[in-house]
Amino acid sequence: MIDFPYLSDVVRPTSSRIVMVVVDGLGGMPHPEYGKSELEFADLQTLDALSASSSLGLTTPVLPGITPGSGPGHMALFGYNPVKYLLGRGILEGMGIGADICQGDVAARGNFCVLGEQGNILDRRAGRLDTETCKALCAELNEIKIDGVDIKVYPVMDYRFVLVIKGQGLYPNVSETDPQIEGVHPLVAQPLSSDAQSTVGIVKEFVCKATELLSSSEGEANGILLRGFSSLPTLPDFGRQYALNPAAIAAYPMYKGLAGLIGMDVIQSEQTFEGEIDALEANFDDGHNFFFLHYKPADSAGEDGDFIAKVRQLENFSHQINRVIEMEPDVLVICGDHSTPSFTASHSWHPVPVLIKSTYSEGTGTVFNEKTCREGALGTMQAEHLMLQVLAHANKLKKFGP
Amino acid sequence: MIDFPYLSDVVRPTSSRIVMVVVDGLGGMPHPEYGKSELEFADLQTLDALSASSSLGLTTPVLPGITPGSGPGHMALFGYNPVKYLLGRGILEGMGIGADICQGDVAARGNFCVLGEQGNILDRRAGRLDTETCKALCAELNEIKIDGVDIKVYPVMDYRFVLVIKGQGLYPNVSETDPQIEGVHPLVAQPLSSDAQSTVGIVKEFVCKATELLSSSEGEANGILLRGFSSLPTLPDFGRQYALNPAAIAAYPMYKGLAGLIGMDVIQSEQTFEGEIDALEANFDDGHNFFFLHYKPADSAGEDGDFIAKVRQLENFSHQINRVIEMEPDVLVICGDHSTPSFTASHSWHPVPVLIKSTYSEGTGTVFNEKTCREGALGTMQAEHLMLQVLAHANKLKKFGP
Repeated sequence: MIDFPYLSDVVRPTSSRIVMVVVDGLGGMPHPEYGKSELEFADLQTLDALSASSSLGLTTPVLPGITPGSGPGHMALFGYNPVKYLLGRGILEGMGIGADICQGDVAARGNFCVLGEQGNILDRRAGRLDTETCKALCAELNEIKIDGVDIKVYPVMDYRFVLVIKGQGLYPNVSETDPQIEGVHPLVAQPLSSDAQSTVGIVKEFVCKATELLSSSEGEANGILLRGFSSLPTLPDFGRQYALNPAAIAAYPMYKGLAGLIGMDVIQSEQTFEGEIDALEANFDDGHNFFFLHYKPADSAGEDGDFIAKVRQLENFSHQINRVIEMEPDVLVICGDHSTPSFTASHSWHPVPVLIKSTYSEGTGTVFNEKTCREGALGTMQAEHLMLQVLAHANKLKKFGP
Repeated sequence: MIDFPYLSDVVRPTSSRIVMVVVDGLGGMPHPEYGKSELEFADLQTLDALSASSSLGLTTPVLPGITPGSGPGHMALFGYNPVKYLLGRGILEGMGIGADICQGDVAARGNFCVLGEQGNILDRRAGRLDTETCKALCAELNEIKIDGVDIKVYPVMDYRFVLVIKGQGLYPNVSETDPQIEGVHPLVAQPLSSDAQSTVGIVKEFVCKATELLSSSEGEANGILLRGFSSLPTLPDFGRQYALNPAAIAAYPMYKGLAGLIGMDVIQSEQTFEGEIDALEANFDDGHNFFFLHYKPADSAGEDGDFIAKVRQLENFSHQINRVIEMEPDVLVICGDHSTPSFTASHSWHPVPVLIKSTYSEGTGTVFNEKTCREGALGTMQAEHLMLQVLAHANKLKKFGP
């Protein structure tokens, strides 16, 4: 958690309610074609009006220059050091499809691939594999039995799947079998610590049986590659640390999974942001005093490199957030897990705008974008420290020290 | 190195070329007589124009309020924690004059001093000693022989010299013999750890023989004081850590020495900044993808307390940098190791302007000075993190975490 050993001494439980909305990929940078960032270009009536009475700032998710994945980006926003509490790829991918993963299980991300006659990799991604075929192949792999453990294979999309191994005494320190290049043989899994010996045996047996099954099936995909062996980490409890009763409302499984991992109650909703707000309305008086909502579409448009689409998704967000404002939470936080400029068409390292609206916030601008946030009352902070600002603005932190 | 254990996972070798120019003592502060800082006062056509398409910011070399020497200032710019990787005074002084110092050698900085008849110090700096006399005295001391080691004494300037001891089993944990006050006897060297016992014996023998030699010579300087015993540290390799093929072009020996210590290839050049740029031009296509250049005159003018001279040296720099811009590096970084306001006539603690120009930079201003940098897109960062921003702007960093 936050590197402040006296946190438990200063947190104060109160009934004031906090709504934190994470706009995935919120930040951007000026696009050469438009001369502005998406936030600057967009018509954000509600967000702009909100800025006039809110404190603005920027968050650095990990370190200057470091581009975070969504995992580290969210962990930091919740006050967990994103380097110390890095989630493995297998776990995050599994959470993203809502796979059943419990403490002690080992998960890995898998690719179906094409192997040549000598066993060398011809295509790491079995390129033309469609999701339906992937589902069928996963159904075949789910027939594999290994003594002492349960094996479950989940299709993801195209050539990708998630492997979950359930059993006693499993350890995730297993090296990847994907050499990340073609023309060579898949790697043989190796233990990266001595306690992973028996897990490696299970992985090898699975790879062997899977290759046998696939080679006798009709499709082109006749091999598998495994990466990112990982287990659920033990994470400090979000609610206990902050003296909050937290709930998460997120359309995407990964964010629900992540919120569940840190002990938030997960409230089910329809698979849209509108649906999330419906669920917030329905549960606003249910005793929770911290609600995390997640807005995905701005990130997707940014990753597609579509400037105007990202602008429109930010405008949609600004419009929809009216309903949250009308519920009058004591603190409304609008923040992002990372930037996704349409110019880079990817996550980026740029610091991320943040807005806090409460009785204690100081309005300094009338527009909401990267530049006004840079000049805002909150300054530029490590994302890991945002929760402290949020609690302070909710009057939930006592004085530190005499 | 940078406190980010996943650096090797995210660095990506590419052919994009980075030129980092360190303007020694770049930053300043408003001078009461002129109402402006040197950067604000100067006519910086090229730097100002460059700012319009560059990201600006400030770097804090060590900590707010801490004034760094050039050693820590440069270490931080290269991403080495300047506290953890502090170079000893003997080593730095030796590197500054291009002394032959290898791993395992022990170096110390020396003063010629004047001792009274009772052996007490009358003048710690043998004040009137000129460099020519210093050279002659060093030549005498170079006659000293000590069993099992090689002794080499290098003149520096005025009353200063560098002592280098070469041999097996030497350790630098030796206390200073300079009491830093006059009227008392020189201190006797003591071991600061048990492994330095034999090194202390050598130092004592050297001091004894030197004092004997000097007392029988004609000049006034009849004693020596030794400080800053140190050895070459083992430093992580710059190129390996960042997946770069780095080269240094610096007129002054100390900067060449420092760059060599962290594994940069040192390209020889004429002893001027113009000569450095000639060398950059001649080697720009030689396969290196990171070039460090060093510009000294602004610092020297600042240390002299000469406002107008520093202004002119900054103007000279701005003019000369045109030739670097014309080479079209993918990333051009202009930064400083510390501030040297002519008002303080010394290094200072003020954060240092930085400019990054690349495809990914965001122009926000049309002038380059401390104030525009304070409001720039990069914000204020630890100098130690600058390399991350530089690599990000060169598209040399992958995403961190899934």
